[in-house]
This record gives sequence, C-alpha cells and structure tokens, in this order.
Amino acid sequence: MPERITGILTPHMVPLDEQGRIDEDELRRYIDWMIDRGVHGLYPNGSTGEFTRFTPEERRRIIKIVCEQAAGRVPVLAGAAEANVRETLRACETYAGYGARAVAIVSPFYYKLSPESVYAYFREIALNSPIDVTLYNIPMFASPIDVPTIRRLAEFPRVVAIKDSSGDLAFMMRMIQAVRPVRPDFSFLTGWDVVLVPMLLAGCDGGTNATSGVVPELTRKLYDLTRAGQIEAAMRIQFRLLELFDTMLYSADFPEGFRAGVEVRGFHMGRSRQPLSDTQRIDRAALSKLLQCILAECGYVEAPSEGCAPRTGNLNQDRIAQITASVIAELRRQGAI
Amino acid sequence: MPERITGILTPHMVPLDEQGRIDEDELRRYIDWMIDRGVHGLYPNGSTGEFTRFTPEERRRIIKIVCEQAAGRVPVLAGAAEANVRETLRACETYAGYGARAVAIVSPFYYKLSPESVYAYFREIALNSPIDVTLYNIPMFASPIDVPTIRRLAEFPRVVAIKDSSGDLAFMMRMIQAVRPVRPDFSFLTGWDVVLVPMLLAGCDGGTNATSGVVPELTRKLYDLTRAGQIEAAMRIQFRLLELFDTMLYSADFPEGFRAGVEVRGFHMGRSRQPLSDTQRIDRAALSKLLQCILAECGYVEAPSEGCAPRTGNLNQDRIAQITASVIAELRRQGAI
Amino acid sequence: MPERITGILTPHMVPLDEQGRIDEDELRRYIDWMIDRGVHGLYPNGSTGEFTRFTPEERRRIIKIVCEQAAGRVPVLAGAAEANVRETLRACETYAGYGARAVAIVSPFYYKLSPESVYAYFREIALNSPIDVTLYNIPMFASPIDVPTIRRLAEFPRVVAIKDSSGDLAFMMRMIQAVRPVRPDFSFLTGWDVVLVPMLLAGCDGGTNATSGVVPELTRKLYDLTRAGQIEAAMRIQFRLLELFDTMLYSADFPEGFRAGVEVRGFHMGRSRQPLSDTQRIDRAALSKLLQCILAECGYVEAPSEGCAPRTGNLNQDRIAQITASVIAELRRQGAI
Amino acid sequence: MPERITGILTPHMVPLDEQGRIDEDELRRYIDWMIDRGVHGLYPNGSTGEFTRFTPEERRRIIKIVCEQAAGRVPVLAGAAEANVRETLRACETYAGYGARAVAIVSPFYYKLSPESVYAYFREIALNSPIDVTLYNIPMFASPIDVPTIRRLAEFPRVVAIKDSSGDLAFMMRMIQAVRPVRPDFSFLTGWDVVLVPMLLAGCDGGTNATSGVVPELTRKLYDLTRAGQIEAAMRIQFRLLELFDTMLYSADFPEGFRAGVEVRGFHMGRSRQPLSDTQRIDRAALSKLLQCILAECGYVEAPSEGCAPRTGNLNQDRIAQITASVIAELRRQGAI
Repeated sequence: MPERITGILTPHMVPLDEQGRIDEDELRRYIDWMIDRGVHGLYPNGSTGEFTRFTPEERRRIIKIVCEQAAGRVPVLAGAAEANVRETLRACETYAGYGARAVAIVSPFYYKLSPESVYAYFREIALNSPIDVTLYNIPMFASPIDVPTIRRLAEFPRVVAIKDSSGDLAFMMRMIQAVRPVRPDFSFLTGWDVVLVPMLLAGCDGGTNATSGVVPELTRKLYDLTRAGQIEAAMRIQFRLLELFDTMLYSADFPEGFRAGVEVRGFHMGRSRQPLSDTQRIDRAALSKLLQCILAECGYVEAPSEGCAPRTGNLNQDRIAQITASVIAELRRQGAI
Repeated sequence: MPERITGILTPHMVPLDEQGRIDEDELRRYIDWMIDRGVHGLYPNGSTGEFTRFTPEERRRIIKIVCEQAAGRVPVLAGAAEANVRETLRACETYAGYGARAVAIVSPFYYKLSPESVYAYFREIALNSPIDVTLYNIPMFASPIDVPTIRRLAEFPRVVAIKDSSGDLAFMMRMIQAVRPVRPDFSFLTGWDVVLVPMLLAGCDGGTNATSGVVPELTRKLYDLTRAGQIEAAMRIQFRLLELFDTMLYSADFPEGFRAGVEVRGFHMGRSRQPLSDTQRIDRAALSKLLQCILAECGYVEAPSEGCAPRTGNLNQDRIAQITASVIAELRRQGAI
Repeated sequence: MPERITGILTPHMVPLDEQGRIDEDELRRYIDWMIDRGVHGLYPNGSTGEFTRFTPEERRRIIKIVCEQAAGRVPVLAGAAEANVRETLRACETYAGYGARAVAIVSPFYYKLSPESVYAYFREIALNSPIDVTLYNIPMFASPIDVPTIRRLAEFPRVVAIKDSSGDLAFMMRMIQAVRPVRPDFSFLTGWDVVLVPMLLAGCDGGTNATSGVVPELTRKLYDLTRAGQIEAAMRIQFRLLELFDTMLYSADFPEGFRAGVEVRGFHMGRSRQPLSDTQRIDRAALSKLLQCILAECGYVEAPSEGCAPRTGNLNQDRIAQITASVIAELRRQGAI
Repeated sequence: MPERITGILTPHMVPLDEQGRIDEDELRRYIDWMIDRGVHGLYPNGSTGEFTRFTPEERRRIIKIVCEQAAGRVPVLAGAAEANVRETLRACETYAGYGARAVAIVSPFYYKLSPESVYAYFREIALNSPIDVTLYNIPMFASPIDVPTIRRLAEFPRVVAIKDSSGDLAFMMRMIQAVRPVRPDFSFLTGWDVVLVPMLLAGCDGGTNATSGVVPELTRKLYDLTRAGQIEAAMRIQFRLLELFDTMLYSADFPEGFRAGVEVRGFHMGRSRQPLSDTQRIDRAALSKLLQCILAECGYVEAPSEGCAPRTGNLNQDRIAQITASVIAELRRQGAI
C-alpha cells in the first residue's frame, strides 16, 4: 500500500519584485526558511499562493523553482488547475517531470457546477493524469465537492487525497467515514487552520495551512504535540493560532493578511497583483503592526519600538489602538508631544 | 463562584395523544427513562421540543410537568421564549417558581435582527429576569448572536451560559476565548451532536443534544470517556453518533426524524402538529425501519423481523433498500413469493 | 367566477400606548386616515404589523378593531397564522365571523420546511378553512413556497391568492404562468414596493405594500397611473417610492423604519416591543428627520425647522448629514454659535 | 456627449470542432446568422461564451475573428478579463486594435473581494485602458459590485456602461438613480433575459442576453415592441422567453443548455470543454428535444418527427415526457410496438 501524504504542507505565497514579477531569489530563500522550520511539504499555486493571478507560464515557473529548491528535502504538492481539462493535464505532465509528489486540483470555479459535473471533470483528470491527484474542495470559492462525489472519485487509484478548506469538522468526518474503508491509503488534509487539532483527532492525516507559511515552528509544534497525545498543550497552541489566523484572514481581503504576516517574518513580498485602495493601504499598515505584536508575543520577532497596545479580540478596535500607539510614538520621537 | 452548568442536557420532544394533546403520562414515563439512562439535565421547549408549535399555555404546562417529574434528580433548563420581552419575562417568573435551574432563550426569530437589536433584547431580559438565563444561538433558524454581542451580554450576571447550535467549532472557540477570561463561571454548551467530543476538548462544558433523547446511554458514555481522556474510544462513539444524527436530521424535516427515533425506543409520540403529506408518511415508515437497524446494531432494540439491508451511508439509497427488504418480507409472509 | 382581490392592501402597523398596549383609539384614527387616502384594503397582522410580537388574544383583538372600523368600506385581509394548524383554523373561523374578506397565512417559519411540508400544511388549512385563504410567501423570514407547490395548492378553491414578498419579478411571472390558466380567479399580490409598477405590468393584481401605510396617496396614484397605461408617469413615482422604501427598510431593523414613517405622518405609534439600544435610539431620531425631509419633498408634511441637508442616496451619509444639521440648528437656537 | 451603448448585444458561444479547437468557419457563419437576424451587437468572451475555459491566446483569437467578421456591421463588446490588471490591460490594448467598440470586464472572481478591492481593481483599469470599459456585475459567479462602488467608478470617463446579471430590478433602478444624474451618457445593460421588458421600462439601455444567441428574432422583436410602447405585446413575448430561458438555464449546468439551443438552430457547437457524465449526456439529449419543441412552436424550426408531448412547466417532468415520446416513436419505427 502506498504511503499516505501526511503532515503540514504549506500553501505558500510567491514574493514579487518592484516590477511585480516573480522574485526568484526571495522565493528560494523563503522555501529554505520554511523547510528549516519544519514544514512537512510545500504547496505552491494554492489559493494562498494566488494562483489565479499568475499566467499559465508563471504558474509553471513557480512549480519549477519550488521543486528545484526543495530538492527532495520535502514533498511538493503542485497546484495544477488550468483553464480546462486538457490544459490541466498538460500541467500535470510538466509537474510530474519536475518531480512533484502529487498535484492538487481545485474543483471547477467561476461557474457553479453540479456534483455530476464536478465528478465528470475529475474523472477525466483521474483517468489521464501521469501523477497522483489531490482533490481540492473550497466551497467558498469553487464548486463544492460533496461526500457521494468524493466516494465515487476515490475509486480511481490516481486520486490519493483531498484537501478540504470548508472548515466543517462534521463534513470531514463524513468523508473519512465514507472513503477510509475502501481506500485506507487515501489522505485527508484540512485547510482550516483554526481547528487543526480537532481535525487531526478526528482522523485527518495533516493540513495545508496558510499560517504555516508565517509561523512554521508553531504549526509544527501543534502537529507534533497532537500526534504525541498531548492534547491540552496542543489546544493551547490552537487557541494562539486562532487569534493569528483570524487577524490575517478577517483584517484584509484574502490572502493579503498572510502577505503581511510573511513580511513581518522578514521577507520582501512585494505588492499583490490585486491593487489596494488608499484606505486599504492604511489598514494594511495597521495590520502589520498588529501582527508584529502577536508574533512578538510568540517570540518570533521584536515588538514594534512604540510598544503594543493591549488587545481586546475585536479586530477593528485592535488595529485602531495599535495605529494610535504608532502615531503617538512618532509624535514623541519628533518632540511634538 | 457559582457552579457552571455542565454535562448533556436533553432537548427532548413532547409525546402527543391521538387528539394531538400533550400526553402527560407518556411524557412522565419518557422523563424517567432519560434520567435513568444518565442524562445530566432536561431541556424542554427547545427546537427539538417544537416549542413554536405549542400555545403559551401548553408551553407552561410542559415545563411544569418536567420540573415536577425531574423532582430535583437533574436540573431543568426551561425554554422560555415568548412573543415579546414582557411575555418572556412572565414565563421566566413562572419557571423560576416551578424550580427550573435556568431558562434558555432563543435569539429573536422570524425578523432577522442586527447584533444591536439582539443585544437590546437580551439586555432587557438580563436586567429583569428572576432566574439565570442561557442564550440560545441557532443561526439557521433565528437571528445570529455574534462574538462581540456575547461578550457584551456576559457582563450581566444573570446571563450564565450559551447554547450554540451553529456546529461551528471555530466560532465556539472564539466565544470561549472572548468570555472565559472575564466570566470563569460562564458555561458553553454545544447543540451540534456530531462534533461533541471535539467541542468538549476545545473547552465546552457540555451539550444540549437531541440524540441524547434517543440514545441517552451512548451520549453519556461519549461524555464520560472524553472527560476521562480516552479520546480514541470517545471518537469511535462519535462516529457512530454521526450516522445516527445524520439519518435523523437529513431524512425528514427537523425534528420529525428524532420523533421517529424516540418511537423506536418504545414511546408513543403521536403525530407532529406539522402535518405530513402522503409521500412523507411513506418516507417516515422507511426511516423508522432504518433507525431500528442502526439502534439494533448499538444493542438498544431488536432488529426488524425482516432483517437489515446493508447500509451504504447514502441516506436515500439506504431508506429505499430497507423498505424493499420490508416489502419482500411481507410478501414472503403472505406466501406471495 | 368570484372576483379577484385587487389593488393596494396595506399591511399596517398597530399603535401602542405608553404601557406598550394596543392603542385602540389611535388605531381607529389611523385606519380612517388610510381609507380616506385611497388604500383599497387593509392587511392587519402582517410582517409590517409585527404579528409575532403580539399574543394570540391581541392578534384577535387587532382584527376585530380593524374589521369594525373598516365597516365594509374596504376589504380586510386578516393575518391568521398561529402556532399550528388547529390554532390557525380557529383564528380563521373567528376572522370569518368578524367579516374579513379573506385570511393571509404565512408559510411555516422558524423551522425551514421542505416544499412537501409546506404543501401538507396549507392543504390541511385549505380543506378546513371557512374563509378564503391567501398564501403568504416571504422567503427571507419563512419557509419558501416554490412554483410547483403554488400550482398544487391552487387546486383548492379556498386558496384564492398569493402574496409574494420575494421581490423577484421572474418568480412572480413563473407563478402567474403556472396558475392563471387553471385558476383565472386567482390573485397575485406583490409585497415588494420598489418594483410595484413592473409587477403590475407583468400581471399582478395588486400589492400589499408597507409604504402604503406611510404614503397611501402616492401608492394609490402609482396604481391608478399604471392601470391607465401612463407608464412613464408611474415609473417616476416608482423611483420616488424607491428612495422612501430603501430609507425605511435599510436604516433600521424591519419594521422600525416604517414605524418612524407613520409617526412623521402624525400618528403616535409608541415604542416597538423589540427594544432599541442607545445607539439605535440616536439612529432612529436621525432617520425620522431624514424621512421628514423626503416626505416634505412629496408635499405631505412640513420640512424640519432646521432645513434639509442635500441627500446623496448613501443612507448612512444622509442620516449623519441630517443629524448634523439638527445639532447646528439647536446650537444656533440656544445662541451657542 | 458620446452615444450610449444600446440594444441587445449577444453574449454568444464559440463553436468547437471534433478535437475541441475553435471552429472558425462555424463561428463566422454563426456571427453572420445573428447579425442577419437583428442583434444590435456581439459580446464574445462573456460567461455564456465560456471565457474561463479558453487560454489567453484563444480568447484573443476569438475577439479577432468576431471583430473581423462583424466588420463594422454591429459593435463588438469584447470580454477582456485576464489573470490580473496588467494582463487585462494588455488585452484591452489588443482589442482596441481589433476595432472593438468597448471591452467588458467581469469583477474579480474566485476570491470574494470587498467593495474597496473591487473599486481599486477597476480604478486601475479605468485609468490605463485605451478603450471604453463596461463593468460586468454577476454576483452569482464573481465579487459583487455594489451601488456606491458603481457610483465611484462612474467618475472615470473610460467607464461607460455596466452589464448587470443579478436579475434584481430594484438593484438596477438604484444604480440608474445613483449614476444617471452625473453621467447621462452611461449605459445600463441587463443580462437577465426573463425581465428584459421591465428592465427597459425602468430605464435600461439594452441587454446582453444569452437567449438572443438562440432566438435573435424574438429578442429583437421584444426590444422593438417595448421601445414602441407596445407593452402588452412585448410582455407576451417576455413570457414566451421565460419558458425558453428557464429551460436552457435550469436543465443543465450553465451554459450547456444554451449550447443545446444554438445546436437546435442548426450550428455545430461541439462538446463543451467541461466534460459531461453519462447521465448528463442522456439528460442533454432530452433537453435538445424539448428545446426543439419550444422553438418549433415559435416557428423557428421543425418539430421532432415523433411529435411533442404536452408541457407542464415542470422541467424534469417535461424532459421525461419528451424522451418517452422519442423512445415510443423509435419503437414504432422499428415495428416493435
């Protein structure tokens, strides 16, 4: 029986340079940093990686760089969704050649398709892909993959895993209950970081979690503690992750908050290809300070020089408090107050 | 510090007689049966208890019977929502007199109210109730209670708990994180049976779970195992509960499937006040057989005389398979085949 | 063939006194005022009438007062939904005795029921009601009534109309297309004021529109112009109604904005039974001023003494501008500026 | 003042050959056919045109062919959305060179963006596009464009129109009310075919309607009658269009039903790039027969040789009835019955 995909695979972002092009050097530096801090695998061209905002050529180049740089140290799960089945299969072939462990293919998006269409789409891919396929279910962005459809698709040996970003624990349990008896080698990965411990306890094999691109040490620790049966300690980390995740997810349009988080860890990420308005740029600066405070508490970075305002858990309030602290610190520095 | 409400409190149904009236004898017998099988408390006039389908007078009578019959053996959480704040407060006074431990009040429904209105509603009740109040959040049926609103309402000492039926584990964790530091005596109860173990591990004090009115032995065992740190054993029961819950919830309009479940355990529940169509009556008979099969596997009841068709997890398919088995058994019995 | 229910039937509010009780005198005065200004009928105990916030006894009293006061000048469509089929049928009998033209019964709410259950519920009522029945579809608050279900229910002679508050014109057309060929006497009424002209052009017989309780002259004029084929003139009024409706609907939790509107027309409506928070009370005062400005432009009331700030169509902005104008006027009056 | 874009612009499909490639000859033949039957303009690379299922190169080729073939007879509105702002602007330049009248750009999709992000995205395009821009709002598939955002974007002279496929007439009226006073040259186009007449009466300048690619004669007639003030005659056609639209929209995953419709009119459309399951292929065949019956009634094609089953308006029922008729006809032909 082939081995299941397990552990935390990071759906990471791609640094851009001043001209908005892929910053290859920074990407390679970022990959090394993540591997050094314990991620079990890399997942380029996911939703966090803004795959839809790159051209087909750029998507290929990203996978190439990541596979090269990982160099077998950790497996690469390559996001391979393209405009249609034929183009997606071409990407699968290319990524097999680059040495990816498997591809991850999001359910058809834009059009909201029925389960029957979702099945027909993945069936075609499962029959023709030269590389193992991970289904990617993210119902807030793409056509949902329901339990009977997963069960049907699990009959194709090429389909080896599902990444589910619904965050619905009961749904995950239903999938596991439906598929595990017939495919013990099938892997279940959760994309919803804030319930990672409960998902692992319910039978998940791991996660593809955006926070692991910001705090790979923390997600690794959470994973190891859970596997070691130290549930209480793991849950304490889970609650800490909850604040960080919520702050990055709900303070800006996804995945901009995660870009801010990676920057706080010391990487030049450049501007997103989705432009920001003036208001959003101000909010973004406040978010960075707030994230710096949270990450400083975790011991990963220095606190801002102006100090950290106490947090209330109310994101808007906390962003405003922190920006006020920054402004006052600046005025003091200038001798104005 | 007052003690938190803990354990499994059963949101139970009310048996009706042939004329559609409350069947008091059967209700008392049902209460004894649940208490004997280990439920930690009773929760009449909840959603499972079809509180909206009774008149105000009937709702009072139900609480009176339940409080009398419980007779202090277990606490009673009395559903007290009425047409408006004044009527609800009158019910609170009455239920305090009956000896209920606390009331549970669902967020305003029909109109979809803003957080500010939800706050204003519960504030008025919190200031005037003579009995402890449990907030009841069930966003699929009533105006949602969000985290900042819960945090504000936790400032009133009369508000001692929240029952949340969203089934969203991350939401529960956010509530706990926001409220527990300021109100260590505040109780968090989940109404989503299928993730009861993970909810307890995340910090919940218990649950108000409809399945506990059908398999009180099983939910009690799940609770005890989780509290004892036997997570794997608890999760095995959780998966069993998942099938039962899904079958009762998704095979008929809620809470009709639970009525079928209680009947299989030997109680005369009568017809719901929500009429069934002819098609629904046939489906209901098939559902009863299917539930009998599941409960027989648990060892609680005898299997149907015609035996049980193997289940696939696909509810429609399973109901049809079981009804086919029944028909064939009947034909055989009549010598037709 | 019986005559169809036609015209604008007003789903009106109920004035309350200082103690929160029904203010009978004011209600009678309000009814006369509406009839004098041309409404074709009255519809007490609708959603605008906050039927869920009254007790069963109060609901009966409201219908009694309205039927008495209307005294045959206009037909009364009596909201008759109670806790269950039996209670609803009792209300139907009572309202038949009061002389109501028909009852209107909202689809079952709180629980979200399937089409089959919605059918079973109304079937039971249709078979037993002594008075004509109007189905009431309001999917944002209650279980939706879909086209096939309407078609099935139209087979019962007692079911004579549908009031639809979905605001979906295509849905209304589908209903008309499905039912009119088999029931030419069936009446279609829209509850979505802002598309009243197009609905009438598409075949509706009239509307049950909350704005007609605030500007009965305007909705009557709109109706008459449309029936006379003066579409352009009717559409100009429709656009005016759009601003008024949006202001009342989206500036406060429904139906509080309509209460504010009726008050501006000179009636003492009292406080809603749904309490307001402090913030909401301030917003409510600003809304009243804004509504006074809009209604002054229509020529129905005097403008506020401090004048009206120019409106932008952005509701929040407009409310703030108007409150600022009031504050400045007050400061000037006090000689502070 | 520049002239508004007016009339019915067809968001047409692209015929594919046996190998799934663009069938250029058939596309040119189809374009001529539509222009001959009175469409006011063409809109390639829209949602009906399955723009997301083509590669960037193919999307360019489609626009090139359409502009060439239209040859100035009717204006071309070119769908120009690409992976990001830079790529979209490149497409705008190319399409300006091809002679398109304007581009249409769908709101960012996949990620659900806030109004502020939607604004920032279109602002960047509006400032840099060499060709007029039509905003494309389709909230069921892409980030919604709300009224304040449209109002802000209308300040850029390059933004000259909005295509709205929400089908919400009140929303359209709000847009018109907000924008027309400041931009009398701004054009409002509806993409919701079933309420085309009411939309035109409310002030729309035209529509981009998928049904016009199937029955261009009918949509043209509807448009001309409405403009001539013959509302009753126009509404009769509107009801006929309703059945056709619903049948094509709800009998298969969009836009497969429209492909079936175009085929019934005599074009070889090939298989969609979204594969069909076996079940779907059978359903598709039944749908084609049903569409043939509807179009035969309109006088556009011959009825199927086996005749047409009477239609009930219930789509599933009607498809089954028609397929039964076909099977019986075939059996008769073979002498089996």
